[in-house]
Amino acid sequence: MNITEDILTEVIKKRAADSHKGTYGRALLLGGNRQYGGAIIMSAESCLQSGAGLVTVVTDEKNHSALHARLPEAMVLNFREISLQKELLAKTDVILIGPGLGLEYESLALLSEILSKQKENQWLIIDGSAITLFANHTLALNYPEHTVFTPHQMEWQRLSGLPIAKQDDANNQIKQQALQATIVLKSHRTKIYDGKEIYHNTAGNPAMATGGMGDTLAGMIAGFLAQFEKNTETIAAAVYLHSKIADDLAVDNYVILPTNISHELPKYMKKYATERN
Amino acid sequence: MNITEDILTEVIKKRAADSHKGTYGRALLLGGNRQYGGAIIMSAESCLQSGAGLVTVVTDEKNHSALHARLPEAMVLNFREISLQKELLAKTDVILIGPGLGLEYESLALLSEILSKQKENQWLIIDGSAITLFANHTLALNYPEHTVFTPHQMEWQRLSGLPIAKQDDANNQIKQQALQATIVLKSHRTKIYDGKEIYHNTAGNPAMATGGMGDTLAGMIAGFLAQFEKNTETIAAAVYLHSKIADDLAVDNYVILPTNISHELPKYMKKYATERN
Amino acid sequence: MNITEDILTEVIKKRAADSHKGTYGRALLLGGNRQYGGAIIMSAESCLQSGAGLVTVVTDEKNHSALHARLPEAMVLNFREISLQKELLAKTDVILIGPGLGLEYESLALLSEILSKQKENQWLIIDGSAITLFANHTLALNYPEHTVFTPHQMEWQRLSGLPIAKQDDANNQIKQQALQATIVLKSHRTKIYDGKEIYHNTAGNPAMATGGMGDTLAGMIAGFLAQFEKNTETIAAAVYLHSKIADDLAVDNYVILPTNISHELPKYMKKYATERN
Amino acid sequence: MNITEDILTEVIKKRAADSHKGTYGRALLLGGNRQYGGAIIMSAESCLQSGAGLVTVVTDEKNHSALHARLPEAMVLNFREISLQKELLAKTDVILIGPGLGLEYESLALLSEILSKQKENQWLIIDGSAITLFANHTLALNYPEHTVFTPHQMEWQRLSGLPIAKQDDANNQIKQQALQATIVLKSHRTKIYDGKEIYHNTAGNPAMATGGMGDTLAGMIAGFLAQFEKNTETIAAAVYLHSKIADDLAVDNYVILPTNISHELPKYMKKYATERN
Repeated sequence: MNITEDILTEVIKKRAADSHKGTYGRALLLGGNRQYGGAIIMSAESCLQSGAGLVTVVTDEKNHSALHARLPEAMVLNFREISLQKELLAKTDVILIGPGLGLEYESLALLSEILSKQKENQWLIIDGSAITLFANHTLALNYPEHTVFTPHQMEWQRLSGLPIAKQDDANNQIKQQALQATIVLKSHRTKIYDGKEIYHNTAGNPAMATGGMGDTLAGMIAGFLAQFEKNTETIAAAVYLHSKIADDLAVDNYVILPTNISHELPKYMKKYATERN
Repeated sequence: MNITEDILTEVIKKRAADSHKGTYGRALLLGGNRQYGGAIIMSAESCLQSGAGLVTVVTDEKNHSALHARLPEAMVLNFREISLQKELLAKTDVILIGPGLGLEYESLALLSEILSKQKENQWLIIDGSAITLFANHTLALNYPEHTVFTPHQMEWQRLSGLPIAKQDDANNQIKQQALQATIVLKSHRTKIYDGKEIYHNTAGNPAMATGGMGDTLAGMIAGFLAQFEKNTETIAAAVYLHSKIADDLAVDNYVILPTNISHELPKYMKKYATERN
Repeated sequence: MNITEDILTEVIKKRAADSHKGTYGRALLLGGNRQYGGAIIMSAESCLQSGAGLVTVVTDEKNHSALHARLPEAMVLNFREISLQKELLAKTDVILIGPGLGLEYESLALLSEILSKQKENQWLIIDGSAITLFANHTLALNYPEHTVFTPHQMEWQRLSGLPIAKQDDANNQIKQQALQATIVLKSHRTKIYDGKEIYHNTAGNPAMATGGMGDTLAGMIAGFLAQFEKNTETIAAAVYLHSKIADDLAVDNYVILPTNISHELPKYMKKYATERN
Repeated sequence: MNITEDILTEVIKKRAADSHKGTYGRALLLGGNRQYGGAIIMSAESCLQSGAGLVTVVTDEKNHSALHARLPEAMVLNFREISLQKELLAKTDVILIGPGLGLEYESLALLSEILSKQKENQWLIIDGSAITLFANHTLALNYPEHTVFTPHQMEWQRLSGLPIAKQDDANNQIKQQALQATIVLKSHRTKIYDGKEIYHNTAGNPAMATGGMGDTLAGMIAGFLAQFEKNTETIAAAVYLHSKIADDLAVDNYVILPTNISHELPKYMKKYATERN
């Protein structure tokens, strides 16, 4: 099915008057090693601007100051501190791991710990270098039906074994079946495979071809899953809105920095918000 | 009584031509441990943007750089440095303790020191983790009539012992009597109890349900008490303006980041400023 | 004489087509200890936005990151590094020392070194804590006729010995004669004493009564002296423009953060720029 | 030949729908020592805003936090880490070395390593202190036909041996022949010498006479070479657009901070983008 503007009005609901920040979910974002700190900062921005109630970012300590300079709304921990925070992990609604995580031993240890601690009611998004780590090591998913991979084509090749030329719907569906998780396969026309349906994103443009776009999308998916129904439609809505904002910005801009998309989120979501049933 | 727009014109006075920064008060803000540095940054922003004359922020040193990157107008000290600053403490008009302070031993020591050093003419606002610390330890107020607690419902449960379901006006008033301090009980319709009157906030909306809203409110209360009459009307005006700005922003925004409220403060306060008597 | 808008068209000249950054002067700004780093950041912003060609900021290393996050256009050194930079000191056109410098031994040593190294063609602006240090220690000026003090009333009391109540024109002129330097005496109606004329600032308003206003003014004076004629008119133009921008902003704002003034500088200076003779 | 607006429509091509960030090139920017970190931050901003697909910045670690606070889209390494990143170096399309690099031993070692590792298909831009280092030491270019120097007149004097008064077209062409590299000779009317043609920039104005303008231009040249045809026209287009934006901004601004030019890039490039052949 094609993802169109309709999915936004379906997924984005007006907020109830007597809600509080807990109502909109706790998101835990893990990534940003010493080289790629900007990636997790961009994920945090889109996650918060899309309306997640509380966002904690686990990243190398050298990234904390830049994150807070841009986004005091986020809380921070470094990679070693998170394993001590059992209560925080238990209360988290959505976990995103991977943006700028890197391929170091420490990155792998963190991914392994997060995978083993995922609880049934927690959704887990595996992005960026965490996909490569997952592809290269013997790791297993506790709750694949609540897990989302967000590979671009080369990462999907690593994860599925399918060369890019062979990444057609039939083959992708077979590989999705093996993994059981939802696959957001990013390209200039992103597709989503969840074992039931294939979602085709109809928006997107080449002004988005710049580093950090995927990190921003991953943060939006986390933000949407934190507060809306936890299903593929919600993921598809995040994918579509990310591209839709970029299409509008591309009317006047040759290239779109990912953080510009995040800044537009509150206004766009307001436009599409409909009464909750 | 309902808090309405009228309270803004009552409280916010035009500034006298021959005033200087000392006229508008010295505020001391304490909070922001290693994990929650953003909280005290947000308090500092709203405190300064609401017009406090001089703002010093006492926070973990790791937060100083991000604070200055956003807000060079604030001065900084780390937790250990403050106890050496007897002169600064003595000259302070308003103290806010708690946003992102954490529950560590160091946090408790700092709260304990501040409580013991409060002087009669100094107003003290106890927010966030400082409320939990106060509830969990045997601490006393020097000048409860010049002390304000700003709990959300769960923090009020800890402080008062009242389960959320039992937090009605009658019970809240009894507990306020025991504490003698002013209580700003935050919910989607915030109430203020000061032993004489119950103030009902008539503004506010669910786009405010995001982390940091309380930190921003606490900073505004500090900023208002630093420069206007030191009484419950002034606190109520801060509470109302915080929600009023958010209501206006929510016309176009699905979610409101707390720092967006701070940026609107100078324009809103100008609109409501009336001649001083 | 009253300083009015006319002084801006007199002082601010159109730039020559074949000029380069060296044409507009090298400014060296020293200040910002561990507690007051924001002060020198604000000075650097106004100095650069007012058009100084090259700005180097000497400040505690903990302030470098926040400075660069706001202002990559500035260069940085820490207090100890500056004494090794003989070539930089020699090439500097204007030196500003004092914003947030503090009263530590290190601050005094730095002030003492700068005073002893001032060369005849270098203008020196002594602001903030450097005024207090100068007042409290036995220090001398090499070139008082090229030195500017920018005290507020309490600092002028320390420097001149005159209690605020006795700071009238007659007494201030006597004290200026003793110092021989130019005095910018800041109050809600700032005055300038240079031994020949008394300049009365006719602009300014109480929305400016907030921490950092003086740091911003000091940076503007440095920026103006770096690129325009080095005389009292140029200092008076900086004083007036600082207040003029604030008066315009105060139409819509209850309080004006100092950095907001800096952001307006390029547009205002363009409006008043006239052909050079 | 005069460089005019036409060069923008010639060089800036509409992006193909099925492109990705790799299509627009990997840029490696090296510079920013402990004193001049802002320079490489400004280069990174213009490089990213001009549309380079992926940007990695190699700079002193003290600059990483400020860079990420402004620009999470960039990746970071410190000077020592880069020599371990053989894969990254090999995949880079364009290398810029020099903005704020300094003249230390470490700077020289880095320049020497980059020069020796340049591969035939990689364009190398040598700017700022790297020009001075190159002029003062015995260093050679591997691929001068893919190398660009961007000296201002004093740096060109160091590099070519020509005193500024003798820097006419005839002499400059002789010196370009000796170096074989492309020379972007910056002045209030920048010229480009590539051994075939002399390009005269017809735009530019004295509001650009402020520190950092050259760093911003160097980043733009890197961004343009990363994504457009690798030739002198592309370099000339970057030079012209940098001045053209500044000319438009100078209508309303007395001085133009370099980062303001970067912010305008996406909109300007959109206006001039034409269909690719």
